[in-house]
Amino acid sequence: MGVKLGILGLGIVGTGTVQLLQDITGRHPLLQEIEIYRVGVRSLDKPRTVELSTEVLTTDLEAIVNDPAIDIIVEVMGGLEPARSLILKALSNGKHVVTANKAAIARFGAEIFTTANQAGVYVMLEAAVGGGIPVIQPLKQSLSVNRIHTITGIVNGTTNYILTRMQTEGSNFGDVLADAQRLGYAEADPTADVEGLDAADKIAILASLGFGGRINLQDVYTEGIRQVSKTDIAYAEKLGFVIKLLAIAKRNTPSSPLSVRVHPTFVPQAHPLASINGVYNAILVEGEPIGQVMFFGPGAGAGATASAVTSDILNLVATLKTQRVSTEELHQSKIQNPKSKIASLNPLLACGHQEYCQIAPMAELITRFYARFLTNDQPGVIGKLGTCFGNYGVSLESIVQTGFQGELAEIVVVTHDVPEGNFRQALAEIRNLSAIESIPSLLRVL
Amino acid sequence: MGVKLGILGLGIVGTGTVQLLQDITGRHPLLQEIEIYRVGVRSLDKPRTVELSTEVLTTDLEAIVNDPAIDIIVEVMGGLEPARSLILKALSNGKHVVTANKAAIARFGAEIFTTANQAGVYVMLEAAVGGGIPVIQPLKQSLSVNRIHTITGIVNGTTNYILTRMQTEGSNFGDVLADAQRLGYAEADPTADVEGLDAADKIAILASLGFGGRINLQDVYTEGIRQVSKTDIAYAEKLGFVIKLLAIAKRNTPSSPLSVRVHPTFVPQAHPLASINGVYNAILVEGEPIGQVMFFGPGAGAGATASAVTSDILNLVATLKTQRVSTEELHQSKIQNPKSKIASLNPLLACGHQEYCQIAPMAELITRFYARFLTNDQPGVIGKLGTCFGNYGVSLESIVQTGFQGELAEIVVVTHDVPEGNFRQALAEIRNLSAIESIPSLLRVL
Repeated sequence: MGVKLGILGLGIVGTGTVQLLQDITGRHPLLQEIEIYRVGVRSLDKPRTVELSTEVLTTDLEAIVNDPAIDIIVEVMGGLEPARSLILKALSNGKHVVTANKAAIARFGAEIFTTANQAGVYVMLEAAVGGGIPVIQPLKQSLSVNRIHTITGIVNGTTNYILTRMQTEGSNFGDVLADAQRLGYAEADPTADVEGLDAADKIAILASLGFGGRINLQDVYTEGIRQVSKTDIAYAEKLGFVIKLLAIAKRNTPSSPLSVRVHPTFVPQAHPLASINGVYNAILVEGEPIGQVMFFGPGAGAGATASAVTSDILNLVATLKTQRVSTEELHQSKIQNPKSKIASLNPLLACGHQEYCQIAPMAELITRFYARFLTNDQPGVIGKLGTCFGNYGVSLESIVQTGFQGELAEIVVVTHDVPEGNFRQALAEIRNLSAIESIPSLLRVL
Repeated sequence: MGVKLGILGLGIVGTGTVQLLQDITGRHPLLQEIEIYRVGVRSLDKPRTVELSTEVLTTDLEAIVNDPAIDIIVEVMGGLEPARSLILKALSNGKHVVTANKAAIARFGAEIFTTANQAGVYVMLEAAVGGGIPVIQPLKQSLSVNRIHTITGIVNGTTNYILTRMQTEGSNFGDVLADAQRLGYAEADPTADVEGLDAADKIAILASLGFGGRINLQDVYTEGIRQVSKTDIAYAEKLGFVIKLLAIAKRNTPSSPLSVRVHPTFVPQAHPLASINGVYNAILVEGEPIGQVMFFGPGAGAGATASAVTSDILNLVATLKTQRVSTEELHQSKIQNPKSKIASLNPLLACGHQEYCQIAPMAELITRFYARFLTNDQPGVIGKLGTCFGNYGVSLESIVQTGFQGELAEIVVVTHDVPEGNFRQALAEIRNLSAIESIPSLLRVL
């Protein structure tokens, strides 16, 4: 028993991680060197599906991160506080941290990684994005020599599940959400998922790794899927697209600012992400010279997430071995000047950047748009729409009167690439046209 | 300039690697510490698309692997000899090796890794499988805690390109191959690709990593795509399948022998691998608790392969840093007892296994089959076929007389899961039926 773990939290991911660590036959032999030393929980009385001795279970989480015997803290409690404070304390105490907490990393990454670097320890977060899909480690290591220009992900299983069912069943958002909640695919409070906030946390993390700079979460444009209607899904299909909630980070030239955003998107049916359905996640990375690579798999779930958490633990254990530092030596080194440890951090595993990425305002985004208009059935409406778009340099790929909704004529427009600002200006003018009743839908096209 | 490279070979991959290393702005800053110290080529007079000084270029490859100044040997010459000898010599001399040579690793992996472990150095081979797709490192690190039970890959771009074109164009194998050769997607001698030998090398490597044991290449059942006809591709489509050359390694239970094989396969259209088209590669890994993860990307090409090779180099450089061993110290340590270095190897990056995997004979494989029969149009032929299959316990999913080829009736059979041995026995009996003219196709169904 070489390396001692302190696990914070015994919910779904924590339980999955303990189960994996208690059942190691047929897995990597290095797992034998890991000991579940303490597990911090809120209540000792709650029935558990894993067996842990009474010395291991404790409600004193502070004591775990301060325990000098512990080498690695596994933070799987989630939430912002006390998770943030416990992670920072653990790092300051010279402990490596493995976390699945995308919300804390996306918000407090700067102080967390600064603290880790000062203490000469690692923060590992494979489970924070894409559940069990290996994407953090590939970005940090296997793709590290590339100039990344785009990361595009389906990184929220709940919304992908809802959109997939809306598409296959022709159902409304509200009905599918209610059913997803009943089945456990959506939470009672689905805000973080359906509003795109969870995806925003994740693309902030991926962008930071891919583009080598910190990301201000406030700079991530975020739009959820509540306004996606079955009508638009049907139009998408007719036009050769599917609607997906994409999280996108993109840099057009090495010197241009990043665009980082989450929004429902028309995805061409032949695109690799178009066929990612249900609760699955996928992350497409494009760079030079690699071209396109995609990582696909289960974006959530106890087992998949436990795979990512435990692999991070195992990688730490393996890395510690290369440092030729025994657990005893490691403990001794904690009382020395921590700066002496920095030189030994693997620069691909540690966080090497401190600058913030410059993020472009959405008005500067160049993208295609799909928009749906309800108009009074007057002659010349299409002409007026076309003129307004033309006034702001918005070039149209197609403009079609598709039918009627009651008394109103329905017109669907797909643009060519256009600066979002220009499109918005044209739209403001169009809204003032007397013939325009409403603009029920507006979606970006990949 | 910290780490000195000796590159063996300046073909497509070597040139791509040099280009990447000579153009590092906007890539990982650690690349600055890498120096292209020697590049071994066959001829100094050949025109090159990269500029290298005359001190760097040499035809003396032996001298490179024996040069005490060199830290890492990058073997991108390909072929079996002298690649094998040079790799072994480099390892014995205490140099780490990065190689893209699947053929050499699949055949000589045992001696190569034994030598590396004895010398306390690493052999990195991300580029050997899947071109630029990160799959070796994820298998070694990110998925290391899983019990892998299946690895299924489209790992040969040439055959996938040919099959994709046969499918979309309804063309014959021979015509598409000729065109692929003209376009540079297939080599003048296409044997290694179209006979499945290249895919066999790659699945042997993946199986070895995924299942933690060495693989005897002779044990890998290998069947190419020459016999795949446009008729079968059309039937596959009607039945809801596509035909792909799959490389499969599978273990049914933790204690059962492995099945490792390459053959054209009926893949259900909804399967993640069914939509991998053209020269793209994809590797689907299934395990517990991860479930399914898939890695997709360019399986070949100068840029993609150079990405993998250079990432391996960078990971070595980063790992060497964690060992707190400067280049100077590294050189000094070479003259010491090499065993002192073994303890410091990262156990996830080094090869930890020495046993050979037990491979099940194909007769024991449990799989579904598709078979096509040409028969004399006699009444009762279907009944006779059904009886023969029944005699050997082969349960049929469907048996359909699909039409005529000239005078002969064409019958297509799809079985349920059956031991391959039983199916072959039934087939031997069927071949002797007077009504059976020929059995033009026989393919396994995923």
